[in-house]
Amino acid sequence: MIIVLKPEAPAETAQELLDRISSKGLKPLHMPGSERVVLGALGDERVLAELNLISHPMVESVKAILAPYKLVSRELHPHDSVVRIGELAIGGRALAVIAGPCAVETHEQTLNTARAVKAAGAGGFRAGAYKPRTSPYKFSGHGPEGLRILREVGDETGLPVVTEVMDTADLDAIVELADALQIGARNMQNFSLLRAVGQVRKPVLLKRGMSATIEELLLAAEYLLSAGNDQVVLCERGIRTFERATRNTLDLNAVPYIKQRSHLPVVVDPSHGTGVRDLVAPMALAAVACGADGILVEVHENPVMALSDGEQSLYPEGFEALMAQLRPVAAAVGRTLG
Amino acid sequence: MIIVLKPEAPAETAQELLDRISSKGLKPLHMPGSERVVLGALGDERVLAELNLISHPMVESVKAILAPYKLVSRELHPHDSVVRIGELAIGGRALAVIAGPCAVETHEQTLNTARAVKAAGAGGFRAGAYKPRTSPYKFSGHGPEGLRILREVGDETGLPVVTEVMDTADLDAIVELADALQIGARNMQNFSLLRAVGQVRKPVLLKRGMSATIEELLLAAEYLLSAGNDQVVLCERGIRTFERATRNTLDLNAVPYIKQRSHLPVVVDPSHGTGVRDLVAPMALAAVACGADGILVEVHENPVMALSDGEQSLYPEGFEALMAQLRPVAAAVGRTLG
Amino acid sequence: MIIVLKPEAPAETAQELLDRISSKGLKPLHMPGSERVVLGALGDERVLAELNLISHPMVESVKAILAPYKLVSRELHPHDSVVRIGELAIGGRALAVIAGPCAVETHEQTLNTARAVKAAGAGGFRAGAYKPRTSPYKFSGHGPEGLRILREVGDETGLPVVTEVMDTADLDAIVELADALQIGARNMQNFSLLRAVGQVRKPVLLKRGMSATIEELLLAAEYLLSAGNDQVVLCERGIRTFERATRNTLDLNAVPYIKQRSHLPVVVDPSHGTGVRDLVAPMALAAVACGADGILVEVHENPVMALSDGEQSLYPEGFEALMAQLRPVAAAVGRTLG
Amino acid sequence: MIIVLKPEAPAETAQELLDRISSKGLKPLHMPGSERVVLGALGDERVLAELNLISHPMVESVKAILAPYKLVSRELHPHDSVVRIGELAIGGRALAVIAGPCAVETHEQTLNTARAVKAAGAGGFRAGAYKPRTSPYKFSGHGPEGLRILREVGDETGLPVVTEVMDTADLDAIVELADALQIGARNMQNFSLLRAVGQVRKPVLLKRGMSATIEELLLAAEYLLSAGNDQVVLCERGIRTFERATRNTLDLNAVPYIKQRSHLPVVVDPSHGTGVRDLVAPMALAAVACGADGILVEVHENPVMALSDGEQSLYPEGFEALMAQLRPVAAAVGRTLG
Repeated sequence: MIIVLKPEAPAETAQELLDRISSKGLKPLHMPGSERVVLGALGDERVLAELNLISHPMVESVKAILAPYKLVSRELHPHDSVVRIGELAIGGRALAVIAGPCAVETHEQTLNTARAVKAAGAGGFRAGAYKPRTSPYKFSGHGPEGLRILREVGDETGLPVVTEVMDTADLDAIVELADALQIGARNMQNFSLLRAVGQVRKPVLLKRGMSATIEELLLAAEYLLSAGNDQVVLCERGIRTFERATRNTLDLNAVPYIKQRSHLPVVVDPSHGTGVRDLVAPMALAAVACGADGILVEVHENPVMALSDGEQSLYPEGFEALMAQLRPVAAAVGRTLG
Repeated sequence: MIIVLKPEAPAETAQELLDRISSKGLKPLHMPGSERVVLGALGDERVLAELNLISHPMVESVKAILAPYKLVSRELHPHDSVVRIGELAIGGRALAVIAGPCAVETHEQTLNTARAVKAAGAGGFRAGAYKPRTSPYKFSGHGPEGLRILREVGDETGLPVVTEVMDTADLDAIVELADALQIGARNMQNFSLLRAVGQVRKPVLLKRGMSATIEELLLAAEYLLSAGNDQVVLCERGIRTFERATRNTLDLNAVPYIKQRSHLPVVVDPSHGTGVRDLVAPMALAAVACGADGILVEVHENPVMALSDGEQSLYPEGFEALMAQLRPVAAAVGRTLG
Repeated sequence: MIIVLKPEAPAETAQELLDRISSKGLKPLHMPGSERVVLGALGDERVLAELNLISHPMVESVKAILAPYKLVSRELHPHDSVVRIGELAIGGRALAVIAGPCAVETHEQTLNTARAVKAAGAGGFRAGAYKPRTSPYKFSGHGPEGLRILREVGDETGLPVVTEVMDTADLDAIVELADALQIGARNMQNFSLLRAVGQVRKPVLLKRGMSATIEELLLAAEYLLSAGNDQVVLCERGIRTFERATRNTLDLNAVPYIKQRSHLPVVVDPSHGTGVRDLVAPMALAAVACGADGILVEVHENPVMALSDGEQSLYPEGFEALMAQLRPVAAAVGRTLG
Repeated sequence: MIIVLKPEAPAETAQELLDRISSKGLKPLHMPGSERVVLGALGDERVLAELNLISHPMVESVKAILAPYKLVSRELHPHDSVVRIGELAIGGRALAVIAGPCAVETHEQTLNTARAVKAAGAGGFRAGAYKPRTSPYKFSGHGPEGLRILREVGDETGLPVVTEVMDTADLDAIVELADALQIGARNMQNFSLLRAVGQVRKPVLLKRGMSATIEELLLAAEYLLSAGNDQVVLCERGIRTFERATRNTLDLNAVPYIKQRSHLPVVVDPSHGTGVRDLVAPMALAAVACGADGILVEVHENPVMALSDGEQSLYPEGFEALMAQLRPVAAAVGRTLG
C-alpha cells in the first residue's frame, strides 16, 4: 500500500503512520520526495485496511497495490474452474447454453419453451419464479407455484434448471427444487443474501450489478467462496451507461479481463445486455468469440404473450437460428457446442 | 400510450393491436402518417403494460404518456407530506439534520458522537449495526449487539435513531429497537425487502441506488406506499458516473425535480454523495439551497479510528462549524434550523 | 411528433399549438385523455423542430416518432455502402484491417511497423501526425513533418494511409497527403470540422465520441453526407463509463444496432476500446463476430519505446497472432480476410 | 510515481526500469514485497511520462503521485485569481451573473433580452453567433452578422459580451468583437482551439466537457495558461450520466473540489446543467451556496419563440425572481450580488 501525505503534513505525521504500520507487523517505507512525502507498507493489505489511513486529515491518498480479492483470483488458483449444474459443465472446452423464458407463467408455456430450447441444443433451462420488477404494479412471478412447475419441467425434459433467489427467506425452498441458483443484478451487493447462498451447496450464477465494477463483481464472488461455496459462475449482463438506444451496454471487455484474473467460469447474457431482440444473436456470437464459457438467453414460445421481457425474448425459431450461427464461431475459437 | 409501428408493418397489425387495446377497455387511436403508422391508447397505462405491446415484432417503439408511479405523485396528493421520527419532523419548514457515525463501534464512541451532534443541533442520530461492505474481509457491523447499543444511546440522549435494515430476516429486531429504518442504496431495488418494510409501521429513509434513475427511486417508494407504509423519506446520496475525483456524483438536480413531482420529503447525504470530508459542508449548504428538507451527515468522534468511512466523516468540530454555516443559508431560503 | 400537455394546460393552449402545427403544413391531431391532453403532428419532423414546442410552459414533453437522421439511414438507402480507401474496400464481404502506431515518430519506426502489418495481412495503415493529448506537456505529433513521413511510407509499402485531422486549418495539407482522414473521438461534435471535411472528396473515418450516443454519431455522419461527402466509415472505439478496469468500455452493441439502421460501414477500434494490450485480440474477434466490417488496431514495432499509447499497442508478433485467430472467426460469420 | 511489476517479472526487469528512472535524473526506489515488486521514482513526474513505463509487458500498473497540472494549481499560486471581463470581475467577493439567450437571433430580441437582464442585475451578457448543434438541420447561428449585432448590443447596454468560438478560423473576428470568448463543452478537448485561444489576450470561459473528468478540465485550462493566457474562468455545466429525467447531471461536487485545488474562478451554468426551466433557479442557488464565483444563465425575451434551447431558457420575469432569491443566499455565504 502506498500512502501519499498532503504537502503541509508535518514530519511527526509520517512517523506516527510508520509506527502504526509497524504495529500491524508490516514493513514500513519512508520516501520523502521534493513535493510530497510518500509512505509504503509492504505485506498483507487486508490488515492495513483496518488502519483506515485514508481517514487521517494529513493523508492525501492511499493506493492499494494488490487486488482486494483472493479466493477468486487466478494467482491463488491458476487453473480454470469447471462448475457442474447437473449434466451441464461450465468452464471447460464445451460451451454452456442456458435458455428459457424470463418467467414461469404456466406449466404449458414453460414445458413448451423447455422442449424447444432442448431440441435446439440448450444444455440448461432458466425461468424465474420470483421476478424483480421496477414497478410494484407488474407481474412479479408465481413464487412457490412457479418453483414447482419449474421442477416438473426440469424432470420432464431432463434439463437442469436455474432460477433466481431474491430473499434469504425463500432460499431453502429454492435450494430444494432448483439445480442452480441465480443471484440477479439488483442483488449482487445484497450481502446478507451472498452470505446465505455461500452456505448452501448448490451452484450459483452470479450476475454483475448494473453499476458494479468488475472488481466489485469479483468481491461479491469472494463473499460466496469465503463462505464456503466455490461453485460460482459469473455472468456479464450489461451495465448502465448514458446510451439510450439499448437497455444496457453489454460490457464484453469484462469477459477476457475476468478470464485473465480469475479461475471462475464467465457466461454472458445478451438478452438483458441489449434489451433488444434483434441484437441478441450478434452479441451472443461476440461473447463466444471473446472467450465466454457460455451464454444465457431468453426464449419464449410466444414473446408477444410474455408477461415480462417479451421485447428481448427470442422466438424458438430465432433461438434455433442462433445455435446454428454459434457452432462455427465456437469452433473458430476452439470450443465445442453440444 | 403511443405505439409506433415499423415501416414494414402490414395494415392487419394495426388492426390487431387496436383490437387488443379496445379489449382492455381503453380508447384506441389510429394515426397513419407518411412514414410510420402511429397508434394511441388513452386510459390507465398500467392496464396497457399487461399487453406488452413492445414485444410485437412489428412494433418499433412504445412511449408512455403518464408517469408509472401514482401514490408518491403530487398529482394525487398535492400537499407536502411530513414524516415524523419521534420528535423530528421531516418535510415541514424546519430542516431535519440527522448525524452520526457510519457504524456503531462501541457504546462509548456511539454515545460521545451522539452527544456531540445533539449539542451542535442535530435532531436525529444515525449509525449502522448492519453494514453493507464491498469486501467480505471488512468490518460489517456488530449486528444485534450494535442495535442494543444504539437503542441505549437513543434513550440516553433523547435523539430518535435511524439504522439500516439489509435483510428481511433482521426486520423484526430492527423495528423493535429503532425509531426509523434506512434502506440503503444497494438495497433500493431489493423488492422483497421493500415489500416487507412496506408492511411495518415505522418511518423509512429510502436511499437512491447508485445507478437508479429518479423514476426508479420513486417506483421503489411506490412499493412502500402501495404496501401500506406512507412514512417515507427519500434520500439523494450520489450516483455512479465516470468522474473519479469524488466517490460518487451528488445529483442535486434530483432534489427540486422530485419536490416538483412528489409530495414525499427529500433529504441529502453529502457524506456518501462526495466521499471526501472537505466537500461535505459545501454540498450540505448546496442541498439546502436547492430545497432539500434535511441532511444526513456522517460524524465520528475520531474519524482516524473509525472502522469504516472515516475519510468522509466529519470531526465533531467540523459538524459544529457546518451547523453554523447552515443557519444563514436555511434562513435565506425560508427554512429554520433547530 | 407527440406533444403531451401539462395537466393544468387550458383548452386554448391545445388550440394554439394545433394552429401552429397546421401553419407549418403538418397534420394536427387532438387526443384528449382522462389525465392528459395529447397532441400529434404528422409529417416531416424537421419542420416541427422549428416550432420548438418543448419551450412552451404548458408542454410537459415532446416525443419524436422518426429518427432525426435521413441520409445515413437504411430507410433511404437500403443497400450496404462500400467505401474505398485506395485498394482497400470497407463494407463488402472482405474485412478491412487497418493497423499502425499511435503516432508517426521516425521514418524508420513508421516504415518498420508498416512493413510488419502489411506482411501480417493488413490492408491499410494508420498513424497520427497530429495527436490529441489530454496534457499540454505530452508529445502531440510531428505535424507536417509527420505527414510527409506517412506519405513516403504509404508509397514505399503500397498501403493506403489514414491519419487524423484536428483543425480546419490543417485540412488542405492532410487532404493532399493522406488517403483517408480520421475524425477523432474528441472532435466528433466539432461541427466546423465536420462541415469542412464534408466538402472534401476523401474518405473519412469518423470515430464515436467518448460520451456520444449512437444517434449523435449518426447525426455527426449526417453532417458529412449533407455537406456532400458520402465516403464515411463509422468507428466504435469505446465509451466512457464508471468502469475503471479498462480505459473505455467498448460498446459492441453499437455494431449490429448501427448496421440495422444505417447503410454506412462500421469498424471497431479495440485498442482504444479497451486501453489494455491483452484485451485487444479477444475484442477484435468479438467485433468481427457481431458484424463489424473491419478493425482498427494499434501496432508498434517496439511499444516500450512508443511516445504515446504504448500500453495498448500490440507487438508485431501479437498482431500476426491476432490475424491468425481472426481468419477462422471471419469465415465463421461469412466474411473473408485478405 | 509508483510502478507495480507483474508477479512473473524477473529481477532483471526491476533493474532495467530502475536504470531508466535514474537515466532521467530521478531518484529510483526498490521495494520488493512478498507478492509484488514495487518500484518508485521520485521527482518531476512529467519527465517520467516520457518513459512510458506502463507499456512494458512486465509492468502491472503505474500510479502517479502528483497532479498532472501545474499552472492552474493552488500549490503554485495559493491566492484566488480574479478575471476581469470589462467591468465585471469574476473570482472576488462579488458574484458574477452572466445571462442572455442561447443565440443571437435578431437585433431586437438580443437588445430586449440584454436590457432585461441588465435591469435585473446581470453584470455580463452571453449569446451565441456560432452555435454547436447535434443535427445539421437545426439553426446554427448567424455567424459574423450575429457577432456584429452582439457588439452593438454590448455597446448599447454597457454590458460586456461573451460568445462562443468553435473554430480557429473564426478566432480573429471573435476576438475583435467580443469581450470574452467561450470554449464550449464539445470543444473542451479541441486542442488546436485551446492552443490558439491560449495565444490571444482575451478572457476565456472554459466549459467542462460533458464526459470530461475534473482533472481533464484542469488540464484543458493548463493548455491555455501554458500558452500564455491566464485569464481563464472554469464553468461546470453538467455531465452525461445514465439519468434521463434531466438533460445533464449538474456536478456541483466539482465546484468546491476545484476551488480547493485551483486558483481559477469557477462559475456554474444551471441552464445546460439541468436542461429544464423549472430547475434553473434552485440549482443556481445551490451553485452559489457551495462556493461558485458566479452563474451563467440562459434568458430569452420569449422562450416559446427561441430558435434553440427555449425549454431551458428563463423568461425575463423568471430571471428577475431568481436574482431576488439569489441575494440572501449570496449574503449567507459571505458574497455580494450587484
